[in-house]
Amino acid sequence: MDIKQYMQSVGTRARSASRLIAAASTRQKNDALLATVDALQASRTQLLSANEIDLDRGRKNNLESALLDRLELTGARFDSMIEGLHQVAALADPVGAISDMNYMPSGIQVGRMRVPLGVVGIIYESRPNVTVEAASLGLKSGNATILRGGSEAIESNQAIARCLAVGLEQAGLPATAVQVIETTDRAAVGEMITMPEYVDVIVPRGGKGLIERISRDAKVTVIKHLDGICHVYIDQGANHDKAFDIALNSKTHRYGVCNAMETLLIAASEAEVLLPRLVTAYRDSGVELRGCDQCRAIDSTITAATEEDWHTEYLAPILSVRIVSGIDAAIEHINTYSSQHTDTIVTEDYPRSMRFLREVDSSSVMVNASTRFADGFEYGLGAEIGISTDKIHARGPVGLEGLTSQKFVVLGDGHIRQ
Amino acid sequence: MDIKQYMQSVGTRARSASRLIAAASTRQKNDALLATVDALQASRTQLLSANEIDLDRGRKNNLESALLDRLELTGARFDSMIEGLHQVAALADPVGAISDMNYMPSGIQVGRMRVPLGVVGIIYESRPNVTVEAASLGLKSGNATILRGGSEAIESNQAIARCLAVGLEQAGLPATAVQVIETTDRAAVGEMITMPEYVDVIVPRGGKGLIERISRDAKVTVIKHLDGICHVYIDQGANHDKAFDIALNSKTHRYGVCNAMETLLIAASEAEVLLPRLVTAYRDSGVELRGCDQCRAIDSTITAATEEDWHTEYLAPILSVRIVSGIDAAIEHINTYSSQHTDTIVTEDYPRSMRFLREVDSSSVMVNASTRFADGFEYGLGAEIGISTDKIHARGPVGLEGLTSQKFVVLGDGHIRQ
Repeated sequence: MDIKQYMQSVGTRARSASRLIAAASTRQKNDALLATVDALQASRTQLLSANEIDLDRGRKNNLESALLDRLELTGARFDSMIEGLHQVAALADPVGAISDMNYMPSGIQVGRMRVPLGVVGIIYESRPNVTVEAASLGLKSGNATILRGGSEAIESNQAIARCLAVGLEQAGLPATAVQVIETTDRAAVGEMITMPEYVDVIVPRGGKGLIERISRDAKVTVIKHLDGICHVYIDQGANHDKAFDIALNSKTHRYGVCNAMETLLIAASEAEVLLPRLVTAYRDSGVELRGCDQCRAIDSTITAATEEDWHTEYLAPILSVRIVSGIDAAIEHINTYSSQHTDTIVTEDYPRSMRFLREVDSSSVMVNASTRFADGFEYGLGAEIGISTDKIHARGPVGLEGLTSQKFVVLGDGHIRQ
Repeated sequence: MDIKQYMQSVGTRARSASRLIAAASTRQKNDALLATVDALQASRTQLLSANEIDLDRGRKNNLESALLDRLELTGARFDSMIEGLHQVAALADPVGAISDMNYMPSGIQVGRMRVPLGVVGIIYESRPNVTVEAASLGLKSGNATILRGGSEAIESNQAIARCLAVGLEQAGLPATAVQVIETTDRAAVGEMITMPEYVDVIVPRGGKGLIERISRDAKVTVIKHLDGICHVYIDQGANHDKAFDIALNSKTHRYGVCNAMETLLIAASEAEVLLPRLVTAYRDSGVELRGCDQCRAIDSTITAATEEDWHTEYLAPILSVRIVSGIDAAIEHINTYSSQHTDTIVTEDYPRSMRFLREVDSSSVMVNASTRFADGFEYGLGAEIGISTDKIHARGPVGLEGLTSQKFVVLGDGHIRQ
């Protein structure tokens, strides 16, 4: 197969389908989502056997067990795919929404209309349920999607793709509005990220290595985050119970997630009293602590943190701790070491809460709340295609709106420029 | 001079200044703009002699007269720089604006805060007044700017830069928030567009060749438009007086601008009557017409348009004309040939006006208004740093808001994730 030629024809079909899907009514798009539900349920047996083929091949190829686990389409995961489609169908349609329509001195009315981006490319690893999730968000936001799942899930993804095609066609929409790449050749990814004439944005989901490679080589905008080095800063005069709860929840609620806290900053005025209480709680949860010299003066069981620690996303029961003089040093530390994902201040002080909100340059900035809230569902976006720590286009959790932009609309009645 | 090293130090200074400028109050930013006005007025003589040096060098190097004209800092242009600074000072500050703050089921409040992008790189050609315009918009939107003007304007730009530095310092802001590149070496542009660690967005202003080169090589998002192939479609049943006015104004108000109409589409039902009237008017204005066979059957003085014509931005008194069967063919033509800049329908029909607004995928879509309205001032943005025909981040005229993005802000009172 000539990969370049194949991807160009995928791109051409996507570009052409994108016009039809952009003009589709909310009703048609929801019909397609619900018809996909029916198609998935009718094909449940075929889907599970396709998945079995992938699993068999994976076992033969000695795929590591974590990967095999993610690859498996369990009953619960099948049900959550169905549930996800219902949820996306229930979300408000962002396309066509007009805002800020105002009369200008010339007499014209000027406003903005929310419109799809066009073609969204999604590159992900082993989990086949991402196929349905990404396709449904692309569809609801009026975009054509090109999906490139992990090669180990190719049979499962193709089977799911057939159900999506049935759903689209039953709603009178082009099946090519969702295309799953049919080759496992890695060159397909290289093509996909370098054809801006066919693809408007790339959303990579997977390990940092994958995302770094894609960002480096892409000629198309990439919506992404690389790291989640999140901070909690406990301010001078903070309420110790709130501080204790937030510091504990941000670290120990789940370890392997991007919105878990990796570094705790404590104002010197609170450390004497609060740090020992936290050390005990972390120790009970099995969290290893690495701290600055001042921390170690308070509790000598804390090991010494190196410069490297402030830069590290552990994704594990390890936490770096630093005592800072106050909010200036905290903001300075965060703006230096944070990955601009999510950072929280725990404070009772109004001016300092406002300063933190304003001056911390991260995609989510919080006051008196756990970093774990940084999530599309918790933010009311309904679903999330990814998280962006970049500054252009979208920051933070990216839902349907992040897959759209706004064009200007002008209404006149024969108006001309004088 | 080691250009790479020089640009890295410019980048480092910009990144560091960007934090301070992002946190600056509206008052401070306005003070800096008004102090720049004073500095410019105090340095008027020096500025004009710096400009005279550039002009002399330009004349010796046989610069073409159009370039020399743009390079000249006339009294009127000096006054309009001053006027521009006053206007930007009077604009509302977009930074820190919070919107859509809502309570979530968990009890947290989630909203969005508008924040600067960070460091904006602006690359432009000969006009020295762009230095003040770009710097003032960057400053008001809380960004640090790196300005790279045409080498032929280097003395003028350096003299203006000194006034900007004085203005910033008098307001207690870092002079490095606005940096004008001190070398005329072209390698500086190559560095600037490939250092995403220091530059968040590039806005190129100039000829298509410059912008194409920059877009091809950039590793940073580029806010740009390449072409302005704008259309007016006169619908079946359109009011002929409105159609006549809009078709004439869109073409003949100014020829060399990106929002001038380049192709006129007329519904077959209206062409017999309306086209002869338009042909006469265009002829009186000296506009050459190139049309489809149907047009030429109505008026044989119209020359034959080629496929190439539909793709061409004339920027001149030339217009291509095509008779189409109706709105479907018009939208099809526009979505095929338009540069996604600005397209207008002239219609009295409500459903077709709505279809046009929704289905034409351009950055400005209009009903019954001249394409010439596509402009930051006409849209009430106050000023415009550029126009984007891309779909990501910003579409259409880009004002202060286009130099910002939105982060999430979360307010809690000790909330943790269950």
